[in-house]
Amino acid sequence: MTITIVGIGLIGGSMGIGLLESGFAKKIIGVDKREEHLNKALRRKIIDEAMDLDAAMAVSDVVIIATPVDTIIDIVPMVLNRVDKQVVLDVGSTKKALLDTIADHPKRKRFVATHPMAGTEFSGPEAAIPDLFTDKCTVICNEEDSDVDAVKVVKDLYTALKMNILHLEAAAHDVHAAYVSHISHITSFALALTVLEKEKDEARIFDMASGGFSSTVRLAKSNPKMWVPIFKQNRDNVLDVLDEHISVLSQFRSLLIKNNFDTFEELICKANEIERILNNE
Amino acid sequence: MTITIVGIGLIGGSMGIGLLESGFAKKIIGVDKREEHLNKALRRKIIDEAMDLDAAMAVSDVVIIATPVDTIIDIVPMVLNRVDKQVVLDVGSTKKALLDTIADHPKRKRFVATHPMAGTEFSGPEAAIPDLFTDKCTVICNEEDSDVDAVKVVKDLYTALKMNILHLEAAAHDVHAAYVSHISHITSFALALTVLEKEKDEARIFDMASGGFSSTVRLAKSNPKMWVPIFKQNRDNVLDVLDEHISVLSQFRSLLIKNNFDTFEELICKANEIERILNNE
Repeated sequence: MTITIVGIGLIGGSMGIGLLESGFAKKIIGVDKREEHLNKALRRKIIDEAMDLDAAMAVSDVVIIATPVDTIIDIVPMVLNRVDKQVVLDVGSTKKALLDTIADHPKRKRFVATHPMAGTEFSGPEAAIPDLFTDKCTVICNEEDSDVDAVKVVKDLYTALKMNILHLEAAAHDVHAAYVSHISHITSFALALTVLEKEKDEARIFDMASGGFSSTVRLAKSNPKMWVPIFKQNRDNVLDVLDEHISVLSQFRSLLIKNNFDTFEELICKANEIERILNNE
Repeated sequence: MTITIVGIGLIGGSMGIGLLESGFAKKIIGVDKREEHLNKALRRKIIDEAMDLDAAMAVSDVVIIATPVDTIIDIVPMVLNRVDKQVVLDVGSTKKALLDTIADHPKRKRFVATHPMAGTEFSGPEAAIPDLFTDKCTVICNEEDSDVDAVKVVKDLYTALKMNILHLEAAAHDVHAAYVSHISHITSFALALTVLEKEKDEARIFDMASGGFSSTVRLAKSNPKMWVPIFKQNRDNVLDVLDEHISVLSQFRSLLIKNNFDTFEELICKANEIERILNNE
């Protein structure tokens, strides 16, 4: 199978590596407006060839759109305009805005909306790694709106990447993504800013930053060009979760003010239940 | 050198392993009110022998207090009451309350206040690991209040554990610890609670929890018996940092409400500067 990947960054690049290594793809074609990304991807053998979109689509069975979500929403209709029998999928972190945009597109059924839940805080083809997706979950949204053969190809593709497949309606996906991915990034950004602000007065504060700190602020290194469009498209859900999160933090604050450490301990015991969930991952 | 460790948990146990392996200690004696901790530590050869405090002190050169901070504050004066020439140190995450408590103790100078900045979200002797401290920082507080020979032994001990030594005044330590350690735990606990609350309605929300989520809530597994006393003793500093953190989150919230994504992006770019700090670690 020949597969075109539009956007050879962390996700697109890692898919290229995984799909070639698994044998699912015979050939990977890269499309990216940034020439240096294509050159890096060719050098690292993440892609076999770089082409422009029209040339790439003419020889491809599958087209994967792996750009930031603000450009996915422009690129998917453009790709569908050119589709003959190819299968098109995106891998963006928001789903409803995109599916609303293409709802009436005559080639809608050749498109499958997906979200492989994997990533790191790094970006670009230099960040692409094998096995990024192994044993992680991927979501397929509204599969009833896609052709059966297109859904089958996409399922086989994710199975080749060793991912577990979940099915969700697009709006539900966006709520869940706000809870288990988008809010984590906001708390990391906020924690980084809180501590960086303090550093202005106390230059040596980071000398004592320990492992716990690194893991909670790791995501604060994430690329704004990828994340701002996500927060924009998923604004309402992110706002709901952020409100709840601020309210829990305010509860901790109020317990500290009142010196109510018994309730504080009860809350921590409840929070400990997260272990059960993380161990199931 | 014979070293007694009071409290054979994650930190005490890992120190036992590291001090034996480095050759700094010829013998490690464990003191712990929980018999099962002593048994596990003996089985894992983290300690050579279990004794009661009096017997242990009689044959030891160094006594390390590695219990939760609420008991450190009781145990240190008790140990100092029995001190002859031994060096006593604690490894707790708060320093000012303890040093205020023992300020006038006649044996104050045999005590060195320290805080090795290392740990994991696990606890108990089963969580003890070699190299927990390697290349991490440890803080020594108010060393001018300790005997020169006692400070030298403690510095040699941490050098044997391959730690970098920082010197801070106790109150400054507690402020810094609130920023780079204590607040990370509160945000993790709060994030875990936010998402667990949602899970009540949406049982499958965690199927899609990805790597980013795990790293931000990892600390939410931390033991309340260790952490509540830290928040209690460092309440004022933790409250200050928590207020600032809630205020940054509220700023993100306000930008979302106003659809001001330009400023949102500027804040993320600022947060990205945390990379510089984490890479220095």
